[in-house]
Amino acid sequence: MLRILQIHHVYTMQVGVVRSRLQVDSVDPALDLGITMASESKKKVCVVGFGAIGTIYAWLLDRSGEVEITAVCRSNYASLTEHGVDIESSQYGDEKAWRPKRVFQTVQEAADIDYDYIIACFKTLPDLEPTPAVLGPLVQRCQTFVLIQNGIGIERDLQEAIPQATIISGCAWIDVTLVDNYRIMRHGGINRLVTGVHPPLPSTGDAQGNLRLRGDAALRQLEELWKKGGFEPTITSNIVAERWRKNLWNAAFSTLATLARADLFQIYAKDAWEINRPVAEGLMNEVVTVARAIGITEELLPSSAVKHTVEFAQAAYSDPTKGKPFKPSMTVDLEAGRPMEVEGIVGSVVKQAKELSIAVPRLETTYAALKLLQRGIIEKRSNSAR
Amino acid sequence: MLRILQIHHVYTMQVGVVRSRLQVDSVDPALDLGITMASESKKKVCVVGFGAIGTIYAWLLDRSGEVEITAVCRSNYASLTEHGVDIESSQYGDEKAWRPKRVFQTVQEAADIDYDYIIACFKTLPDLEPTPAVLGPLVQRCQTFVLIQNGIGIERDLQEAIPQATIISGCAWIDVTLVDNYRIMRHGGINRLVTGVHPPLPSTGDAQGNLRLRGDAALRQLEELWKKGGFEPTITSNIVAERWRKNLWNAAFSTLATLARADLFQIYAKDAWEINRPVAEGLMNEVVTVARAIGITEELLPSSAVKHTVEFAQAAYSDPTKGKPFKPSMTVDLEAGRPMEVEGIVGSVVKQAKELSIAVPRLETTYAALKLLQRGIIEKRSNSAR
Repeated sequence: MLRILQIHHVYTMQVGVVRSRLQVDSVDPALDLGITMASESKKKVCVVGFGAIGTIYAWLLDRSGEVEITAVCRSNYASLTEHGVDIESSQYGDEKAWRPKRVFQTVQEAADIDYDYIIACFKTLPDLEPTPAVLGPLVQRCQTFVLIQNGIGIERDLQEAIPQATIISGCAWIDVTLVDNYRIMRHGGINRLVTGVHPPLPSTGDAQGNLRLRGDAALRQLEELWKKGGFEPTITSNIVAERWRKNLWNAAFSTLATLARADLFQIYAKDAWEINRPVAEGLMNEVVTVARAIGITEELLPSSAVKHTVEFAQAAYSDPTKGKPFKPSMTVDLEAGRPMEVEGIVGSVVKQAKELSIAVPRLETTYAALKLLQRGIIEKRSNSAR
Repeated sequence: MLRILQIHHVYTMQVGVVRSRLQVDSVDPALDLGITMASESKKKVCVVGFGAIGTIYAWLLDRSGEVEITAVCRSNYASLTEHGVDIESSQYGDEKAWRPKRVFQTVQEAADIDYDYIIACFKTLPDLEPTPAVLGPLVQRCQTFVLIQNGIGIERDLQEAIPQATIISGCAWIDVTLVDNYRIMRHGGINRLVTGVHPPLPSTGDAQGNLRLRGDAALRQLEELWKKGGFEPTITSNIVAERWRKNLWNAAFSTLATLARADLFQIYAKDAWEINRPVAEGLMNEVVTVARAIGITEELLPSSAVKHTVEFAQAAYSDPTKGKPFKPSMTVDLEAGRPMEVEGIVGSVVKQAKELSIAVPRLETTYAALKLLQRGIIEKRSNSAR
């Protein structure tokens, strides 16, 4: 636990610095909308977390010819610096040995310049390392953060730490993996990235003001860059609703698969599905109920999304002779002894339900068990680090 | 799966034989109440499953000097025949190298004589091996079965297979373990065995008749034998209610601990208990709700039992510096890759709730995950047996 406490300490100090700086910045309107000012030179983009998701969205930006990518990566640092990554995409074509302009192992090293965008593609673990702590000194180097990550409420800690920052949030529906020890990025035919500006904190008093304008401008520019790279993101005016919709899948299948160490074929196996169906649908219905209570309307997240999610999974996973067994990333993390995204996927929903006095018995049950598993993982890692 | 199918086949054939025999028996009232007839000679008792529970209750009978124990055991066969078992009980004293009169590895070997009682102390796995299948040819050798086992509805398959048999059912609250590779049975200060005659099937048309009388006589005689051995069981007129009461603990703590691979200290850890408490209480309240619906009144199972169960566990497990970590047997089974008593502890409650259209969202969720884990265990064992 010592390590975590230290990070928190460093983080708190940094946030203090950042807050002061941003409060000064925010009196200068030119700087507030400054995102469009440096158009002659290449945009500086730092991607933190260079797994499959980080790699493909960085590469698609790089293809615009108008950005310089700085990558911060841990596991694949050696591979990326020595060999680069071979891109194999049925949709965007192939590229041998692609390399970001700069590759670093730590956020400290990457914090040597200012950035137009910082794109976060790492796992969100607010219970272990809040996003501002993971970004470290980078939070002082940028005003626009793009979070392409899983879960509900994942923007909260960054938003609270830097109320004046623009946060663009994105949900990726994509089949992309790194294989051959990080040397190959393999992408199938799906790529739907739904992005939107995350609403500013009410306390900034800026819901319709400068922050919103700056956010829209930053998102439009990012969209343009991706388009020049051959990829078109889907822009939404309500990214919060989209996150809740995507979380239906995770709240039902990631939790059940993880508690049971099962793959999706096993969940959909004929005699198992009879037992699992009411649980999966029940978990999703609880998510929809909480979403309604925080103002996500039937129009934004239709109740029929539950049925569609079940049927979508059923089409993919009811015949084990077709396709390979699929385990959600939460399950893979557990089996590898790595912390899981329990908070973003379940904890944040349970927390909101509690605040609103909504009964979520199924989510509460999976959350309790997953949280105990998470504690076990953290304890084991902290013991082995000693 | 082949092995299981074969057992089912053998079992079906045996049940046919047993049924015919018992139907003939039941026209003879002397034989029906014959339990008290052979009082001159020693009572023949066969104990199937010679773990800690089987060992202590067999030993306490043996101490009466009026029974001959036949033990059927797997894991500890060699140890029991070669060394016997050293009894260390703070309550009943010690005994070196106690041995049952006869020790066998299989039910087939033990089926060479008739018994006054067959006491079942093995794990109940109705989804894998129904009790009549485990007992095999022994079911033809006895009219009185004593089930000292966990769970709800565990009498069902035996009762259905032999409607004319007397079933005595018992819930053990006891701290006993086999240690030193089965050579020592260590017993602490607790021993409460609540026993009662399980109600005959309505279809036998004998709820208040011969079966009930024979059951009461058999239970009284068994009680006397144990008393002569220095132990007094608690007799109840409603063992079904007692089973539901005992299942509160298992439905809450065994399930949660198993899904999380946690011990009770971890469940009660201060920051974890906040999350676990509503789940544990919620699971128990669901059990009480189903119990009510099947006619177990507030008097038989007071709602306050939930609070008492929580407080009992809290007293034992809120201070990890006191005592050793405790994992429920279901958790131990999972970690050892052995099938778990999911059906008796959760499945049977969920099934009854479904029949009565009662919502049990928490039990349903734990059941789905545990059942998937159970399938995983069975699959792995069947693969490794090939």
